[in-house]
Amino acid sequence: MGPTTKSQGSSLPSPSKPRLLIIGTGWAGWTPNPHHNHPLPLPNSGPYPSLASAACGIFDFRIAEEPVRRLKNAGKVVKYKVHVSSVDLGKRVVRCRAAVGSNGDARLIGSSEALDSGLSDDGEEGEFELGYDKLILAPGSETNTFGTPGVLDHCLTMKSVQDAMKLRERILDCFELASLPIYSEARKKEILHFIIVGGGPTEVELAAEIDELVHDHLLKIYPDLKGMVTLSVYDVADRMLGQFGEKLSEYAMEKFRRRNVRVCMDRKIEGFESGVMKVKEDGNVRFGTAVWCAGNKATGLVDELKTRKGGGAMERVFTDRWLRVLKPEGAKGQGEQHFEDAYALGDAADIEGQSHPPTAEVALQKAEWLAKHLNDVENGKDMGGEFNFDQKPLVAYIGRKDGVVDGGGEWTGKGAWLAWRSGNLEWTRNWRRRAMILLV
Amino acid sequence: MGPTTKSQGSSLPSPSKPRLLIIGTGWAGWTPNPHHNHPLPLPNSGPYPSLASAACGIFDFRIAEEPVRRLKNAGKVVKYKVHVSSVDLGKRVVRCRAAVGSNGDARLIGSSEALDSGLSDDGEEGEFELGYDKLILAPGSETNTFGTPGVLDHCLTMKSVQDAMKLRERILDCFELASLPIYSEARKKEILHFIIVGGGPTEVELAAEIDELVHDHLLKIYPDLKGMVTLSVYDVADRMLGQFGEKLSEYAMEKFRRRNVRVCMDRKIEGFESGVMKVKEDGNVRFGTAVWCAGNKATGLVDELKTRKGGGAMERVFTDRWLRVLKPEGAKGQGEQHFEDAYALGDAADIEGQSHPPTAEVALQKAEWLAKHLNDVENGKDMGGEFNFDQKPLVAYIGRKDGVVDGGGEWTGKGAWLAWRSGNLEWTRNWRRRAMILLV
Repeated sequence: MGPTTKSQGSSLPSPSKPRLLIIGTGWAGWTPNPHHNHPLPLPNSGPYPSLASAACGIFDFRIAEEPVRRLKNAGKVVKYKVHVSSVDLGKRVVRCRAAVGSNGDARLIGSSEALDSGLSDDGEEGEFELGYDKLILAPGSETNTFGTPGVLDHCLTMKSVQDAMKLRERILDCFELASLPIYSEARKKEILHFIIVGGGPTEVELAAEIDELVHDHLLKIYPDLKGMVTLSVYDVADRMLGQFGEKLSEYAMEKFRRRNVRVCMDRKIEGFESGVMKVKEDGNVRFGTAVWCAGNKATGLVDELKTRKGGGAMERVFTDRWLRVLKPEGAKGQGEQHFEDAYALGDAADIEGQSHPPTAEVALQKAEWLAKHLNDVENGKDMGGEFNFDQKPLVAYIGRKDGVVDGGGEWTGKGAWLAWRSGNLEWTRNWRRRAMILLV
Repeated sequence: MGPTTKSQGSSLPSPSKPRLLIIGTGWAGWTPNPHHNHPLPLPNSGPYPSLASAACGIFDFRIAEEPVRRLKNAGKVVKYKVHVSSVDLGKRVVRCRAAVGSNGDARLIGSSEALDSGLSDDGEEGEFELGYDKLILAPGSETNTFGTPGVLDHCLTMKSVQDAMKLRERILDCFELASLPIYSEARKKEILHFIIVGGGPTEVELAAEIDELVHDHLLKIYPDLKGMVTLSVYDVADRMLGQFGEKLSEYAMEKFRRRNVRVCMDRKIEGFESGVMKVKEDGNVRFGTAVWCAGNKATGLVDELKTRKGGGAMERVFTDRWLRVLKPEGAKGQGEQHFEDAYALGDAADIEGQSHPPTAEVALQKAEWLAKHLNDVENGKDMGGEFNFDQKPLVAYIGRKDGVVDGGGEWTGKGAWLAWRSGNLEWTRNWRRRAMILLV
């Protein structure tokens, strides 16, 4: 028999060691675990799954929970599936709400949200507090619609494994529907119009994925629909992959055009209605599936946090170079600038005075640095050096064994793809999308 | 390039060969395909997936569609994902409604049903007719609540792959919820109470599956919940596995009791409310998950059909011994008793004067006989012999490498399990549940 928890309320494992509480199980929140000797209570603030096991090919509906749970056998990790509604950085208390079953986030519980079997009758009981000695804030980010009307009602998004599963279902639904003998050819073409909004690496790789799925698989299963599928990428920017060099960007756009992917840049999207995207330059564009991945914004938790913040389009928690959360502007000049024992990283955080992009690469480097740092401090070593970001090459897969790599020389074509495949290049955040699509 | 369909409406492939239309893709509807030389239009009337690929371990969310679609490359099969709303056996016309996207059955489209992207604005256009030369009716059956209040709102069912996926999600949700530090031990035990209603082979094997899932996997991941899980099987009958011999039934019940599975027979279930099952003999029984598989009933399509019918608790289409659909009672003595070129099999049909159970074994034997018969007739051979059911041993897996086999001697224990594993026994309908649970 394993241990049985008899106590209630905010009890956590053995208080003989500091209680480290991590909010988030994405790239940033997950990494410190295996490196750390502390007992690790691990609330999960929302749909930010760790994709470690996806990378290894061990896919599961419950990708977010099972790998984390399994750690429990190895160490003293306690994991709660909750929404974190607030954090009191002074009193060191986190307020949580159950995020499972009928109380929870529909995105996390899949298709069982409609079932009412008494898991929802606990009312305010669902709220509880957790104390901590050290806190790691890594709640990630949310989809930003920039106020565009209709996005959340008529578009899919790509922030979670569940989103990727929905997209796959949706694509197949469109092929099934277009197969019925009730539509004109024109209507079939509308149903088989797939739109991706956003021209960054994630969107470009998603377009490449859909292009391959359609041509390598679906058109073989639905041969009658050949010639009726259109894939379009829309963005407000004037070119795809803006953060890559101009030459690489042109290379990718030219490759897409040659495959009959419509590359529609410099477009202002004014809104969505049922099956229709309104574009200032093009008028009404009809579609069967639209995926909105045009931007990220801070989570509600970050909005509520009383810390120093900044970061332009997406508000981010500011930390110092030791990743310690900084007190609000008003606290300047009044003793320590940072909260004690509170760290932040991932999309939700940035270092004041620096400006790192919200990518998995940055999150992973910070997480590895922080795990080592916390263990060093725990073991009585000195604080060591501050965090320094090591810029790796930018990688984007553009489909059909072709890719672009920026940094350390510009690579294109099969060489770029092989370089990634051979493990010479680091995973980028964008590859998580790829892993998800392929595996679901 | 493959062929491109230009025509609209009720067009079907080359009319030079008879158009065979099959309603249903379960055991009964699926089997004739590979054996048959006809062009095979194949409407799918609802959530009756073929589990052929599950048996082979090639599982997919779209298990219902993809194996059927892939056949298209081999032969001349057209498949439509539709609800069949009516069949005119005289005029040889089937009326269909699109069953995909927002028009469709939520159970078929998974989590994308909430997304409105213009697939639902086609109104009555979604209806269309298909003509046929020969018809095979195999629409299966639906869950029967026997009028018990609250079943559909508060219980899961086990009629489809989607149902099995929901059950797995639900079980994991209950473990996550019971892990939160907000419930009393008594409440945790209620959340971790899993109830199965029904004591037939399907329910017994489902109970064995859940028992193994909990003890072999979940309690290792959630060790704090040891001692809090209860599994109960309720039935109105006085013993489990009633169709097996009394000795085998007692053996199975005793084995379950020794594993602390509550075997509650002779119980009248009066209704369900949120998290509560009302039992005449026991009062209110609280649970986290309840699965209702106590019975089957005819589909709406069978209700509407103007044919001869019978079959006791579940109304079934009567056929003669050549599986031809019989005209209604009133038509007796007025020429041919059967409709021309209309066949019925599977759960939805029975042979008049005989009484075969609604099992996969019967469906498969009929389907194989019918495929051969149709090909023989097509090739100018004589009609051959009528269908005769070959009674195979009954098999039920009761978990932990233990099982019971009735027929050709009574087997129990590991021998029974090994006999199945070694392929000496036929698959029974119940094994489809097993395949689903293990693979999702």
